[in-house]
Amino acid sequence: MGMSYPVTSIALPPAARPGDPLDRVDTPALLLELDAFERNVARMQAACSAAGVALRPHAKAHKTPAIALAQIRAGAVGVCCQKISEAIPFVEAGVRDIHISNEVGSPAKAALLAQLARHARMSVCVDHPAQIEWLAQALDTPLDVFIEINPGQNRCGVNDAEAVLRLLGPLQASPRLRFKGLQAYHGKVQHVRSRAERGEIARQAADRAASVVAALDARGVRCEVVTGGGTGSVEFDLAGGIYTEVQAGSYVFMDADYARNDYADAWRFEQALFLASRVMSVGDGSRIVLDAGLKSLAVDTGLPDVWERPLDYVSANDEHGIVNKRSPEAPHPALGDLLLLVPGHCDPTLNLHDELIAFRKGVVEAIWPVAARGLSR
Amino acid sequence: MGMSYPVTSIALPPAARPGDPLDRVDTPALLLELDAFERNVARMQAACSAAGVALRPHAKAHKTPAIALAQIRAGAVGVCCQKISEAIPFVEAGVRDIHISNEVGSPAKAALLAQLARHARMSVCVDHPAQIEWLAQALDTPLDVFIEINPGQNRCGVNDAEAVLRLLGPLQASPRLRFKGLQAYHGKVQHVRSRAERGEIARQAADRAASVVAALDARGVRCEVVTGGGTGSVEFDLAGGIYTEVQAGSYVFMDADYARNDYADAWRFEQALFLASRVMSVGDGSRIVLDAGLKSLAVDTGLPDVWERPLDYVSANDEHGIVNKRSPEAPHPALGDLLLLVPGHCDPTLNLHDELIAFRKGVVEAIWPVAARGLSR
Repeated sequence: MGMSYPVTSIALPPAARPGDPLDRVDTPALLLELDAFERNVARMQAACSAAGVALRPHAKAHKTPAIALAQIRAGAVGVCCQKISEAIPFVEAGVRDIHISNEVGSPAKAALLAQLARHARMSVCVDHPAQIEWLAQALDTPLDVFIEINPGQNRCGVNDAEAVLRLLGPLQASPRLRFKGLQAYHGKVQHVRSRAERGEIARQAADRAASVVAALDARGVRCEVVTGGGTGSVEFDLAGGIYTEVQAGSYVFMDADYARNDYADAWRFEQALFLASRVMSVGDGSRIVLDAGLKSLAVDTGLPDVWERPLDYVSANDEHGIVNKRSPEAPHPALGDLLLLVPGHCDPTLNLHDELIAFRKGVVEAIWPVAARGLSR
Repeated sequence: MGMSYPVTSIALPPAARPGDPLDRVDTPALLLELDAFERNVARMQAACSAAGVALRPHAKAHKTPAIALAQIRAGAVGVCCQKISEAIPFVEAGVRDIHISNEVGSPAKAALLAQLARHARMSVCVDHPAQIEWLAQALDTPLDVFIEINPGQNRCGVNDAEAVLRLLGPLQASPRLRFKGLQAYHGKVQHVRSRAERGEIARQAADRAASVVAALDARGVRCEVVTGGGTGSVEFDLAGGIYTEVQAGSYVFMDADYARNDYADAWRFEQALFLASRVMSVGDGSRIVLDAGLKSLAVDTGLPDVWERPLDYVSANDEHGIVNKRSPEAPHPALGDLLLLVPGHCDPTLNLHDELIAFRKGVVEAIWPVAARGLSR
């Protein structure tokens, strides 16, 4: 099955260069509006600092070392990654404090984590004694370990303090593992539309975490860190008094799904992420077909919105998007017109792109590699 | 906004090596079962050859030069790509006949096509005079051009022979452009479940193409090639007598969506594509959480199926999949168990992965780069 390739080499021109006006960007291309992005970064940091809670933003949202470094410059204590391989480009870029907000999945993955732990302060979650055994075997440096508890999402994590204590035995028996605290993350609450209902579920999750912390405390086990929370629940996570660290990620970008939540004004972050797309066909003159579909935009939470135009993106094929006018009298976009789309779900959309084109006031300022794209191991 | 990275460099170990048993593959990883794949390639080629119709498989499904070369060795006349940038790795790998089954989107894209046309026989679609102008300006070698017609999908393409004739004027006035024929592709028909209904819509699409061909013929304009068709409609495309070339792509892999179609036995291709995933958490003991979610599997046509196990994948998060047992008595998968998933939609799933692990009889045989992943410009 060997392959020998002829030596033809064809360079794809860059989608944009610093200084280009937005209208010159080759499409489809993922864009970051820097003014809104910087305000989002500053606002979340200010809220966490005011609450006395550490901010450890989730890098699974952006997979972009330049963004992690900007968050850390603003005051974040480090970042979260969701997979161990995802952490590699952040360590390479100089991030020195990374929490893997997920269970270690195999002895091979524990070995990769051990390698990363030689370069950066790493931590990881467990919810099963086998994971503790894999870590104990693989590590040659100390590692902070969190026990994940289930705050109501019914995904990973053990249910109660008794189960935490059963894991603490083998954890504390391993000389290189250090029990750091609990992870209590509730993903589903983030996307509950009603602010009141979201607050109620977030408080229930915090109460479950608090009761486990109290039960452990009564047994003489102190949780130094309780980590969790997200962009949709952060108002309640910061007020609840149980989280010492929040993991919000999407707030840097926002997306069409998060935009549909009801927020108090202070907690509505600004849309900073866009997919630049062009009208590539008008068919027989009545249609509007964009050059961006399923391979440029994640649609798991719904189709993208068209930014500030009376147009609806109504159907996505692999590389096409079908757009309808809201009213027949509206002007018909012309072939080649640039439209900005608001992705339905930011995290998996970033995972489709190798670079993020950062712009300010209509002019490209930088091209940032989405260096952790595709790193799901 | 400049960034200087420290020189830490951490190598991600390969997910698999030739000779590894499947159970050693690091997950999540995209797998190709070579026996089924080779039978699919041979069967589609035999059907097209028997019908006297050229097979030009769509490379947007696989984005993998090794697969394109296998299809060409089996008798395919070349491949289709959906975007001009997508063709780059195929030209680099030695594919010398590529049809861009889509409209050229801008002067910059026409310039890239012109560059590719210096190395390979390229063709492209148009449905607007501006696109012809962009091509005429960019090219310094001859190029075959197809006029796309709308066979009922209402995406790209002009509606009738009169509109084709209006484009033919400028096309034939340009010395480097050569009118090659029509593209008539109906994407929606591919996924109609009922074979009878699918056949009816495919015949209507073929009839629309045939009437345009006849009207052009009556005006002395000959369509040397009529290209279209897909995995769901190929039985009817080959029988209809109007297509001289079919563009099927998904047949090499199949997916959970295509598997739900009703087919005559001879036209049901075999499942050859799998996503290898492991149980990464059992939570409190009652749950089954996989290490593969939205960043490893496209869910636009639905969630994946679990291959040959009485389990249902019921919910996808970014990097997690939640699985339920069909009956409470069924054995509970253990932490670390390997499950094979059948992706809902093959094309955008390939676009999430940098490599395809080809295996036979449970042993890894080759690692194939998905070299066109992410090339959507």
